[in-house]
Amino acid sequence: MIDERARFGKGRPGVQTQTAEELYSKLKEDVLTAPRRVERRGTLPCAFGKGGTCCRVCNMGPCQVVEGVEELKGVCGASAATVVARNFARMVAAGTSAHSDHGRHVAKLFYEAVHGEVPFEVRDKRKLRVVAQAFGVDPNLPEGDLLKELADAALRIFSQQEGEIILTHRAPKPLLEKWRQYGVVPRGVDREVVELTHRTTIGVDQNYKNILMGAARCSLADGWGGSMLATELQDLLLGNPQPIRAKVNIGLGVLRPDHVNVAVHGHDPLLADALAQASYDPEIIEEAKRVGAKGINLSGICCTGNEVLMRKGIPIAGSFIQQEVAIATGALEAVVVDVQCIMQNVVEIAKHFHTAVITTSPIAMMEGATHIPFDEKRALEVAKEILRTAIARFPQRDLSKVNIPDQSVDIVAGFSHEAIMYILGGRFRASYKPLNENIINGKILGIAAIVGCDQYRVNEPIQVELAKELIANNVLVLATGCSATNMAMAGLLSPEAAKLAGDGLREVLEAVGCPPVLHMGACVDNSRILIAATEIVHTGGLGDDIFQIPAVGCAPQWMSEKAIAIGMYFVTTGVQVVFGPDFPTLGSKTVTDFLFYEIENYFNGCWRVARTANEFANIMIDRINGGRRALGIDKPKPRVLFDMAMRRALEGPRYVPVFHGLGCFGSHEKLTTEEKTA
Amino acid sequence: MIDERARFGKGRPGVQTQTAEELYSKLKEDVLTAPRRVERRGTLPCAFGKGGTCCRVCNMGPCQVVEGVEELKGVCGASAATVVARNFARMVAAGTSAHSDHGRHVAKLFYEAVHGEVPFEVRDKRKLRVVAQAFGVDPNLPEGDLLKELADAALRIFSQQEGEIILTHRAPKPLLEKWRQYGVVPRGVDREVVELTHRTTIGVDQNYKNILMGAARCSLADGWGGSMLATELQDLLLGNPQPIRAKVNIGLGVLRPDHVNVAVHGHDPLLADALAQASYDPEIIEEAKRVGAKGINLSGICCTGNEVLMRKGIPIAGSFIQQEVAIATGALEAVVVDVQCIMQNVVEIAKHFHTAVITTSPIAMMEGATHIPFDEKRALEVAKEILRTAIARFPQRDLSKVNIPDQSVDIVAGFSHEAIMYILGGRFRASYKPLNENIINGKILGIAAIVGCDQYRVNEPIQVELAKELIANNVLVLATGCSATNMAMAGLLSPEAAKLAGDGLREVLEAVGCPPVLHMGACVDNSRILIAATEIVHTGGLGDDIFQIPAVGCAPQWMSEKAIAIGMYFVTTGVQVVFGPDFPTLGSKTVTDFLFYEIENYFNGCWRVARTANEFANIMIDRINGGRRALGIDKPKPRVLFDMAMRRALEGPRYVPVFHGLGCFGSHEKLTTEEKTA
Repeated sequence: MIDERARFGKGRPGVQTQTAEELYSKLKEDVLTAPRRVERRGTLPCAFGKGGTCCRVCNMGPCQVVEGVEELKGVCGASAATVVARNFARMVAAGTSAHSDHGRHVAKLFYEAVHGEVPFEVRDKRKLRVVAQAFGVDPNLPEGDLLKELADAALRIFSQQEGEIILTHRAPKPLLEKWRQYGVVPRGVDREVVELTHRTTIGVDQNYKNILMGAARCSLADGWGGSMLATELQDLLLGNPQPIRAKVNIGLGVLRPDHVNVAVHGHDPLLADALAQASYDPEIIEEAKRVGAKGINLSGICCTGNEVLMRKGIPIAGSFIQQEVAIATGALEAVVVDVQCIMQNVVEIAKHFHTAVITTSPIAMMEGATHIPFDEKRALEVAKEILRTAIARFPQRDLSKVNIPDQSVDIVAGFSHEAIMYILGGRFRASYKPLNENIINGKILGIAAIVGCDQYRVNEPIQVELAKELIANNVLVLATGCSATNMAMAGLLSPEAAKLAGDGLREVLEAVGCPPVLHMGACVDNSRILIAATEIVHTGGLGDDIFQIPAVGCAPQWMSEKAIAIGMYFVTTGVQVVFGPDFPTLGSKTVTDFLFYEIENYFNGCWRVARTANEFANIMIDRINGGRRALGIDKPKPRVLFDMAMRRALEGPRYVPVFHGLGCFGSHEKLTTEEKTA
Repeated sequence: MIDERARFGKGRPGVQTQTAEELYSKLKEDVLTAPRRVERRGTLPCAFGKGGTCCRVCNMGPCQVVEGVEELKGVCGASAATVVARNFARMVAAGTSAHSDHGRHVAKLFYEAVHGEVPFEVRDKRKLRVVAQAFGVDPNLPEGDLLKELADAALRIFSQQEGEIILTHRAPKPLLEKWRQYGVVPRGVDREVVELTHRTTIGVDQNYKNILMGAARCSLADGWGGSMLATELQDLLLGNPQPIRAKVNIGLGVLRPDHVNVAVHGHDPLLADALAQASYDPEIIEEAKRVGAKGINLSGICCTGNEVLMRKGIPIAGSFIQQEVAIATGALEAVVVDVQCIMQNVVEIAKHFHTAVITTSPIAMMEGATHIPFDEKRALEVAKEILRTAIARFPQRDLSKVNIPDQSVDIVAGFSHEAIMYILGGRFRASYKPLNENIINGKILGIAAIVGCDQYRVNEPIQVELAKELIANNVLVLATGCSATNMAMAGLLSPEAAKLAGDGLREVLEAVGCPPVLHMGACVDNSRILIAATEIVHTGGLGDDIFQIPAVGCAPQWMSEKAIAIGMYFVTTGVQVVFGPDFPTLGSKTVTDFLFYEIENYFNGCWRVARTANEFANIMIDRINGGRRALGIDKPKPRVLFDMAMRRALEGPRYVPVFHGLGCFGSHEKLTTEEKTA
């Protein structure tokens, strides 16, 4: 089944699946879709912009800079290294802004929920005290006080002007110390973004290393700040994801021909959650019936899709590059969008159908869309208003245009960090120990994260081929964002896909009943990987720091500036990260050498670039093998006879950080803000 | 004298003065100066970048977009309007970041000073309570409490997550109400920058008007937030500028052949202030004597120069475009830089001389420079260390290379808002009333601000020709930043220049002994113009809102992103602002029409573009005349016979805002946080 599903497009730009091929091919030639625009623009974008050597930070430019040619420095004398580092840093700042503004929205809602100002409440009481502790709040406070202190602490992650943001203290100690040594522990998220933006204006920071260290600090404010906050508070408000069966890709179980179909698209799960609630409302169902539909059917696109897939099992109609395709089924009454990765072209495509495009955020509007502001105080009412707009479109559905290829795939998603602990260790002893042990004994070679976007300048779903090669080599794959959707569409997120795994990995997967690719969530949820990695370190046996784990990350089709921020926080956390199909610093060998090699001397992580699945796999498996060698677990250990002293040494006190082993299942008495040795 | 001084360069790119011409011409052809780089690069930069239609916010690009050509939208479907608005908004965000980070630095130092952590203190006690009141602090508190509350309130301007920042409440009431109506009253500066950066990432805000309204809000966080804070707290720490005689341009009184010459360059006056103190230190003077110099001589470049010119009368060696030229005198032992507008090329030019380039800020470093971090806790010690580095270079001065054309000009600077009130109204009745009356009676046609940068893609100091035309037309000119330096070098900042003014303006200037161009400070000090405009409104007779004043602003050689932020906050405040030699939205007629015309329906201000001094003058004088017409002061009023009822009506109660008429000279009892009618 799997191989049959992994059908690629015919090599037309950006048409990566047969589903897309089928639906796009039905559109008239004058409908300007994104793939057609790529074709007609030509495939070679401006080399200066692509390589990072176009400087636009002042009005003496744009200066197109060529490294090594003195005359072609910037008018002000800015070197290629300065210009490339500045452009890279601004991407990090922009990506951090995006994730963190998302996080701020959640934090604000959390605050209002706690103070009774919005009809949301904390659903996940198990996780609450663990999260409180992570925010530096005494986990043993009475719930009311704890919630208020937590809400204040969350807002401080953004506003804090001085000192380290508390979430960075979750990292393994040696890592935190390393960050302190190089001065990259972030202050408040907002301050880091503003400072990085300032230092990349004309005539401020012109030492590429210093700029990149600034970018490193800002990126940590994203990963160990805004993004992590978004994930954790969303879990509290909407529930911690647990394994759940669902469907991805366009199909009759995803877009129902007899229902009012509404796709939620963007990144913010709060709106989608309210829509889901409203869609069950008898009054709304009745209204849908009145126009001849059986009810409301929700599906997701992009990361809003991942958020509601993970928590509610709502099916995903497609990733970023399928947003036009979903509309081209002719069966969507509305696309409801919030923020990020919404192509302006959806409004144009929707004009050819009866689909309403509904914007909901005050900071994300589009001409030609219907704007229904999502006021959280009236969440359910607004959600109903949105659904009514969709219901009103149902009678306009043109059946001659409806085309729903039945190509959806069954998957299991919902692998939060806590869920993985549970699966591995069981409810009463949630632990990563079985994972660590299987890495040590070599059944699992290592761990690879395949994350990030997909995009129209790539013609194949590289993630799929790459994931297959990795799991065949006994590498467990973690996935988030649109990459996860791509692998899901190829069937790799079902437990049955374990049969594609190498012998060692397959044995472990079959024992716990896991797919070989674990869907951990949306792009803000890459922070779950940080927590999981930290837990792996604390579980023991794989070194004292995250960089020592035989693990590697990649984003084979990165598109958004958010991906660069994510990549940078993983590199600064000690992970090797491989990006493709290109990398935005290649116009300066100096900067690229720093990011690819020298930065490893600071943070033990580094960047790489690759284009084909095979290139990715080679780099990544090499890295994992290197990690195993460094740990001395690359070959069977000789049998050692233990004497009593050796046994005592084994059992001696070991540093146990306060966050270790809690998942969200520990009894609350275990929680403390004091460190202990055990 | 004046005409002789206003000698222009010979039309080589970026060589706008004879001083520059003389010094540049002595450099060997292989010394790559900025003007030479402009020449060799050619003069036509990429049209997409220049016009704002190059989109680089995602890795499917860069997409070079052409308005009106559907195929040449962004791959995602982003229209030219979206792309241009996003690029413009990011400039506003970057400019706001720069000013505000500067302001934050001052606020942090103020906090530390108030808490006894750094050796700085509040020097201006007269202004203290006025500023406290503006920050919402009870001005009648005991000084110790007031200082602490003020320090906290200042930091909140950056960190505040919700609600209006308090400094916006200084604006005239109708203006504040207008801002509220259109939702542009800013929350904390940091939040506005981050949100604007977020909403300009891929697939977020794609409605150009909405994006531009976001930019408007962010810009207000600069002008009525970070910039205003920087100005006010610097005044408290370093003293409120008062008229002071000084010199500008390279000359023997500016760079002394027998002294160790140190130029301070950048934007932060705190470092320069410490250097000035250290330069008087007998120990340092003794050390200078030991190497054969008579002492230390400080001069300023760019806005650090303006800051210390305004407060200490330290001479200015040049504006932004003279930073290389100052080094080329061969007489500079050190250029000490902090942040912003420092060309990376100064390090290259300095290599040809004995000059040390000393960086001092952790966020502004350059390869090839000596880094001596300015730790405010040890301000004087660090300043001495810097001066010692300069002293050590003195023996290396190569006399055969020394060339100090004696072309400096005497000026009067230091026209803070308070100083203008004092000059106009006298110590015991500081007031803008004489100004308003002379505008109403037509002796002064109106007010023009000539502000902003200078840059190498312009061949003439347009500001000078423009200023001459304006003052000849009875327009009083306010100046800040590098524009002020340009006009200063042409002699327009001396009281004698009043002879160039039209009859009406000359009469007023001679009565008060003022130059026709008033130097109000550095680029953050454009906020002084906001306060002055507000005071003019409250003084009465020229309408109820800033847009009604017959006033206009311009930046004829804008260069930095900061200039765009400044322009935008003036437009949003109700001022017409003319920029040149080009404008960054011209690639989209839609966006340009909005910024040039439609935005006036919201905020009564608007943008224009001009290239020659004459074009500028025509647009600006037209605007002033339009303002006069709207007020009905464009022609002599008919004589009206008053009866008693009319007299009573004249004397009736009038709304007087809390900030009116205080300058910094009012008795403290006048201060209150309650509004009153008088």
